Amino acid sequence: MREDINEKCAVVGIFGHEEASKLAYFSLHSLQHRGQEAAGISSSDGKKLHTIKDRGLVMRVFNEDKLETLSGSSAVGHTRYSTAGDDSILDAQPVFARYDLGEMAIVHNGNLTNAEEVRNQLIEKGAIFQTFMDTENLIHLIAKSSKNKLVDRIVDAVQKIEGAFSLVFLSRTKMFAMRDRFGFRPLSLGRLPNGGYIVASETCAFDLVGATFVRDVEPGELLIFEKDKAPQSIKVFEATPKHCIFEYVYFARPDSTVFGQSVYQMRKNMGKELSKIEPIEADVVIPVPDGGVPSAIGYSQASGIPYEMGIMRNHYIGRTFIEPTQEMRDLKVKMKLSPMIDVIKGKRVIVVDDSIVRGTTSRRIIRMLKEAGASEVHMRVSSPPTTDPCFYGVDTPSKDKLIAANMTNQEICDYIEADSLAYLDEDSLLRSVNSTVSEEKYCTACFTGKYIV
Amino acid sequence: MREDINEKCAVVGIFGHEEASKLAYFSLHSLQHRGQEAAGISSSDGKKLHTIKDRGLVMRVFNEDKLETLSGSSAVGHTRYSTAGDDSILDAQPVFARYDLGEMAIVHNGNLTNAEEVRNQLIEKGAIFQTFMDTENLIHLIAKSSKNKLVDRIVDAVQKIEGAFSLVFLSRTKMFAMRDRFGFRPLSLGRLPNGGYIVASETCAFDLVGATFVRDVEPGELLIFEKDKAPQSIKVFEATPKHCIFEYVYFARPDSTVFGQSVYQMRKNMGKELSKIEPIEADVVIPVPDGGVPSAIGYSQASGIPYEMGIMRNHYIGRTFIEPTQEMRDLKVKMKLSPMIDVIKGKRVIVVDDSIVRGTTSRRIIRMLKEAGASEVHMRVSSPPTTDPCFYGVDTPSKDKLIAANMTNQEICDYIEADSLAYLDEDSLLRSVNSTVSEEKYCTACFTGKYIV
Amino acid sequence: MREDINEKCAVVGIFGHEEASKLAYFSLHSLQHRGQEAAGISSSDGKKLHTIKDRGLVMRVFNEDKLETLSGSSAVGHTRYSTAGDDSILDAQPVFARYDLGEMAIVHNGNLTNAEEVRNQLIEKGAIFQTFMDTENLIHLIAKSSKNKLVDRIVDAVQKIEGAFSLVFLSRTKMFAMRDRFGFRPLSLGRLPNGGYIVASETCAFDLVGATFVRDVEPGELLIFEKDKAPQSIKVFEATPKHCIFEYVYFARPDSTVFGQSVYQMRKNMGKELSKIEPIEADVVIPVPDGGVPSAIGYSQASGIPYEMGIMRNHYIGRTFIEPTQEMRDLKVKMKLSPMIDVIKGKRVIVVDDSIVRGTTSRRIIRMLKEAGASEVHMRVSSPPTTDPCFYGVDTPSKDKLIAANMTNQEICDYIEADSLAYLDEDSLLRSVNSTVSEEKYCTACFTGKYIV
Amino acid sequence: MREDINEKCAVVGIFGHEEASKLAYFSLHSLQHRGQEAAGISSSDGKKLHTIKDRGLVMRVFNEDKLETLSGSSAVGHTRYSTAGDDSILDAQPVFARYDLGEMAIVHNGNLTNAEEVRNQLIEKGAIFQTFMDTENLIHLIAKSSKNKLVDRIVDAVQKIEGAFSLVFLSRTKMFAMRDRFGFRPLSLGRLPNGGYIVASETCAFDLVGATFVRDVEPGELLIFEKDKAPQSIKVFEATPKHCIFEYVYFARPDSTVFGQSVYQMRKNMGKELSKIEPIEADVVIPVPDGGVPSAIGYSQASGIPYEMGIMRNHYIGRTFIEPTQEMRDLKVKMKLSPMIDVIKGKRVIVVDDSIVRGTTSRRIIRMLKEAGASEVHMRVSSPPTTDPCFYGVDTPSKDKLIAANMTNQEICDYIEADSLAYLDEDSLLRSVNSTVSEEKYCTACFTGKYIV
Repeated sequence: MREDINEKCAVVGIFGHEEASKLAYFSLHSLQHRGQEAAGISSSDGKKLHTIKDRGLVMRVFNEDKLETLSGSSAVGHTRYSTAGDDSILDAQPVFARYDLGEMAIVHNGNLTNAEEVRNQLIEKGAIFQTFMDTENLIHLIAKSSKNKLVDRIVDAVQKIEGAFSLVFLSRTKMFAMRDRFGFRPLSLGRLPNGGYIVASETCAFDLVGATFVRDVEPGELLIFEKDKAPQSIKVFEATPKHCIFEYVYFARPDSTVFGQSVYQMRKNMGKELSKIEPIEADVVIPVPDGGVPSAIGYSQASGIPYEMGIMRNHYIGRTFIEPTQEMRDLKVKMKLSPMIDVIKGKRVIVVDDSIVRGTTSRRIIRMLKEAGASEVHMRVSSPPTTDPCFYGVDTPSKDKLIAANMTNQEICDYIEADSLAYLDEDSLLRSVNSTVSEEKYCTACFTGKYIV
Repeated sequence: MREDINEKCAVVGIFGHEEASKLAYFSLHSLQHRGQEAAGISSSDGKKLHTIKDRGLVMRVFNEDKLETLSGSSAVGHTRYSTAGDDSILDAQPVFARYDLGEMAIVHNGNLTNAEEVRNQLIEKGAIFQTFMDTENLIHLIAKSSKNKLVDRIVDAVQKIEGAFSLVFLSRTKMFAMRDRFGFRPLSLGRLPNGGYIVASETCAFDLVGATFVRDVEPGELLIFEKDKAPQSIKVFEATPKHCIFEYVYFARPDSTVFGQSVYQMRKNMGKELSKIEPIEADVVIPVPDGGVPSAIGYSQASGIPYEMGIMRNHYIGRTFIEPTQEMRDLKVKMKLSPMIDVIKGKRVIVVDDSIVRGTTSRRIIRMLKEAGASEVHMRVSSPPTTDPCFYGVDTPSKDKLIAANMTNQEICDYIEADSLAYLDEDSLLRSVNSTVSEEKYCTACFTGKYIV
Repeated sequence: MREDINEKCAVVGIFGHEEASKLAYFSLHSLQHRGQEAAGISSSDGKKLHTIKDRGLVMRVFNEDKLETLSGSSAVGHTRYSTAGDDSILDAQPVFARYDLGEMAIVHNGNLTNAEEVRNQLIEKGAIFQTFMDTENLIHLIAKSSKNKLVDRIVDAVQKIEGAFSLVFLSRTKMFAMRDRFGFRPLSLGRLPNGGYIVASETCAFDLVGATFVRDVEPGELLIFEKDKAPQSIKVFEATPKHCIFEYVYFARPDSTVFGQSVYQMRKNMGKELSKIEPIEADVVIPVPDGGVPSAIGYSQASGIPYEMGIMRNHYIGRTFIEPTQEMRDLKVKMKLSPMIDVIKGKRVIVVDDSIVRGTTSRRIIRMLKEAGASEVHMRVSSPPTTDPCFYGVDTPSKDKLIAANMTNQEICDYIEADSLAYLDEDSLLRSVNSTVSEEKYCTACFTGKYIV
Repeated sequence: MREDINEKCAVVGIFGHEEASKLAYFSLHSLQHRGQEAAGISSSDGKKLHTIKDRGLVMRVFNEDKLETLSGSSAVGHTRYSTAGDDSILDAQPVFARYDLGEMAIVHNGNLTNAEEVRNQLIEKGAIFQTFMDTENLIHLIAKSSKNKLVDRIVDAVQKIEGAFSLVFLSRTKMFAMRDRFGFRPLSLGRLPNGGYIVASETCAFDLVGATFVRDVEPGELLIFEKDKAPQSIKVFEATPKHCIFEYVYFARPDSTVFGQSVYQMRKNMGKELSKIEPIEADVVIPVPDGGVPSAIGYSQASGIPYEMGIMRNHYIGRTFIEPTQEMRDLKVKMKLSPMIDVIKGKRVIVVDDSIVRGTTSRRIIRMLKEAGASEVHMRVSSPPTTDPCFYGVDTPSKDKLIAANMTNQEICDYIEADSLAYLDEDSLLRSVNSTVSEEKYCTACFTGKYIV
């Protein structure tokens, strides 16, 4: 239901399977929640790379004929999120390049914080940039590196970039997976039933293709996939984990294991912690579907207040261009969500959501619950107030649009018309994911402003 | 998730609102779950009827321009389900006719059991039939009635038909709503904010347009809507309620009130009753989403066994024409549903679904849960074994395809590879909906074979 | 290029070929110029009729799967023209009906002049009408006829209707082709390579499917196609030919033979006759493509003035919704037609078109030629002034929109900004088609107002 | 009708008009015949370049909203032809780049003969190539040039490339138009009604937007467009004209003036010359539409043999996926072209086409004419035998597919089943375009193998 904060991408790599592009296709479908604007796959048949990418959902971009074109036993794939209105097909991935060592394709999940600087240096030296993607920096750095071997050039290149990157590189004969030293964005390694390998942003991509989870690609690690060899590991950077905690809060699919832990369990833990923050008497705990479901279940289990399905999500949403009549209020939310009147009427309701970004949706939901007869509505948010934008690969509104950056909790509570409002604090959020503030394993910058310098 | 048993239609009528067709449009969108193949609206501007109908979802069939064509202050609408492969646009509704009293449009939810017989009689008298819809009988019967007034002709006509019918008729100046004496299919009356009226298959259509529930159209009742008058009621038949209990089990939206009771509460009750049937020790109760969610919540609340989200539903489903690789098993189910491994692994799992029709999906789900590591899987079904086809407006497979008509419970349990299987029995199902076998308020023919003669 | 006067339909029937619906499909494609709005085919497999019809061009409506559904060795097909804005799919043909003798499908090219009267009589007797097509009258008349055999009922029915009709009827085992006594609209009989039969609106449909022309269905004749028999002929009406002369002027494809004569030759003859009307000195004769091409060739051959391609037709037209800039005049015409400046500049130009209906297009074309540098532009029209609307199956604007009904020739000449304007007169038009006024073989009502009573 | 030899592209540039992208849009529509696979426009608002490009026809790629995005008073546009199967959107133009001087967009019609060599040199120096277009070389050469001003860099860059190029460059404040020294591909300069400028591949683009022809961009000339200045001219290369004579034979639109002469007149001249080559008695001269129309008119005028429309082109073509029946021969040609039986039957027919590439279409056409009853069919081709592939921007089949490279004229005549066959020879072709072999103003390599070294 979040329309205001979004993961930007998913990546996948397949190595050592006769139907590599088909496996990439199904994996990308499982990762569709991380990006719906564009999708692309590059494959290598050992001699040549083949690339197809286009706007649209994975299932729309590819068909049998196109997948057959993408021949070969290795492939990398990408799905992409984009801000509304920008429909430049040029900015879809994989990014492909011919260069002095041959051909390569790169897929990237993340955001480079020194992209502008690197780009300007490259341009000064005569480079041209044909897209607006950070990733284009990487192919230039690799092409211009003075090293002879691709692996050394990749090491060279990633040492010049800063920020968040989970990358998969495809050359004609090899595949490389790399994660920044902080491990901001997830990247996991799996084994295919036939002995080949898969790397993917989330483990939920493994299940569909029958792969088994091996381990995460480590922060700062470069994995090299070569024919008839086990993946080799190079520690490019000392790992200093700063995993994006918002993956647990909202982005990752609940059936994935990211950063070594079950997303669903982390969310349930958040709900349990949340039940301890400003505990309140109520008749029912209900989630804002689907994001709030696991934490609402956790809240209910910890508090003993019954869990109910108080809001229904309509599966036939879609954009209408028909103007409502003047009597039809909050149409946009109501077409997606309906209140279960019998659950809510006359009840004291605790409604659990994963986060509040702008506050407008929360306000419409609470208004809807009150109209449905709730005697009290207590908003509980399974993360801290979102106060700061992300620079590590998440699309966030600017600070002036983040309600928690501009209002006190009480003001927000008034604005969203709730009877009470409580958030998780940083401590309890970290406790939910089995960490602590002192341990500093997670990036919480969007809640705390503590950016990694 | 049911692909094997389906409600056939939804109807709506709007009377006394300047934007009648727009309200019909939004109402039909709320009723989309009752039929996704075709949609149509007829409106009356007092002098002439206007009809647009086409294949596809409500949002696809209509746009601003088309709704403007559908001018006038009254309108009837329809959404239609259809068996795969049959794409006759001719069989979309409303059914429109010019006849001796002018013009009329009819929308129909249900199925006439004497349709063939009536049709043959009409054909013998020189009538022609241009579609394969039962509803065409009605317009012939009305046109051929010897009565002078439309209302009398409607009474005449409905006395000649048998079976299930929730009907809305539109003439140039009036609207009529009629329900068969058994009240098989639901039909509710609501009040629009501006004083006009709405009738609709389910009350969930009321919320979006701001209408308030007044009461159900009674079994056997004909409601007449006329300008500047309160709706008049004629009791055409003695009411002998035989409401379709499957509306509670699966068809109706959980946020609707049908047959006077909350669908969600009825489903929770079923789950509670189910927990008493062959109670079993287990670690978690999980639903097959979305149909099993309310009953699983009820089961959990009654049994004290924790409710968990053990299966995730993927919102990006859609048809793929890509063949899976040979290692990819049960692709069709896995693209829609994924197991939450951490919830299931090593656990004794009770999985709750609303019904088992053919058994193939249940088998795939249970296999998926076992592969995810469940130590035991106990299937619990919140309705009795589905043993008999429906003749009252529901699309069911033929008897030889209904697993429960051909296997014992133990055989089914073996087939679906569950550790145990239990259904609600007729008594407990009726108890869930606050009824009893002796009271006979519901049609349970699909479970009992007790058809209304 | 005519946007203002249009043939309404084409019909085709195939009898005695294993791939009847496929032959109907390709035939309809050849007849696409007679109707682009909707297309449909009904086939019979001996036991049952199958119908598919939809909006759009023939090639869009059908695909391999759909044609396979239309099994059987006989089929009838239809393409339909419609006035803009009316997109009622209900009004596509074939019209299908189940009635006391079984099933039938009808396709109709023409217009019934007593349709309203017949319809009202039928409605008084209790009939219902579900579409706005005249053709629906026919199925009612057949169904209600007291005769026992279908052939007798068809005779019965067509005796009750008046106006223009070229009809093909399909029953489960037979096919019937019928033409009104005046033979307003064309209908020809052909022989398929395998021994089966085809009837079609124009002979151009024969070529593609390899059929050979046999003869026209006669005015007033009913042809009966039955298995293993030669077609039987019944003279239902005395033939009193009044063929639509506009078929020669504009509608029919130039490669067709209609009413026993080559359309292309008739058009060339018109051009030749035209060269005798107000002969004028000029440098070049150019057609308005494509309608004016044959008559311009005829004009050139008779006058000795060189034929040139003075206006080019753009094949990439299509609707644009982009507003032109204020400097771009007459965009609509210029996107379709471009002047050949080198042919026109400084030349005295005779431009030949088939007819002038509203006059607006002629004005734009002449203005375009003048802007391209023509020193003189003489408009020559290969038919008389169009002064009266058609009631026999052609879509014409109302009389107040027909420029020749409201202006003198001189006024029209001034309006279209031509240096001179001449039309064919009735005599010379009839002479072109090897007829005379006294012979009265053709309907010239649109030029003369002489309607057949 | 040519499916076997194709112009590869069209370019357009607009400078100094508030609605530059709109003018580019309409101009590209006029140039659609030069490329139907993809279309694109870049505009400059003075500060930033905006680019939209996509697969499909011009009218499909752009809409009002997109054109509004392309703000600014200068714009360059491109349409692109592509060999079947290759649908890489990456290879659409304009090619855009950010580089050390800012931003630029380039459109290119032509083909670089040293592209591979230049690319390898650039790659050796660390450049990366992201597409497979020759044009990418240019932006690298410009970016890497040591000169300070863009104009000098362009001069630098074009001196390093060889082959055919008509180019338009757009920077934030200027536009540049450049043509190779041979002037292989056309490029003309026009004046907009408001005082701004247009450059376009063909003058037919001028008419629609109201521009007037000024002159051709000269071979070897670079034109610089700057605000409030007349275009400045730099002679980069000594002009040594080698215009592509196939522009006259087939590619250019007949209403265009290219290389200083009317395309239509040149084609008529070819027909006149052709009538002198192996003159033959015949009853009619007919063109293969549309390519052969002007030369057939010329042939008729010179020979006195009447010009007739002997083959009709169907405007409702489009791809069908329906298999013909076994009796339906040559379906592919017959769906596009139909014989006018009355023109052909029993006649000695001269059929004129612009060229014969593979010979298969000619064979089908002649067979069709014979089946229609032609007593003799004499094929006349208004160009010499096509024996050699083009390396200057035209898509030709490989030499082994060119029938004239592999058969004698007599063998071709036998293959295509003609009664006689004659081509223009080089001399008469050059004479048609007012040139001579000794003058060497035209590239005739596809007919002679005389490539420019």
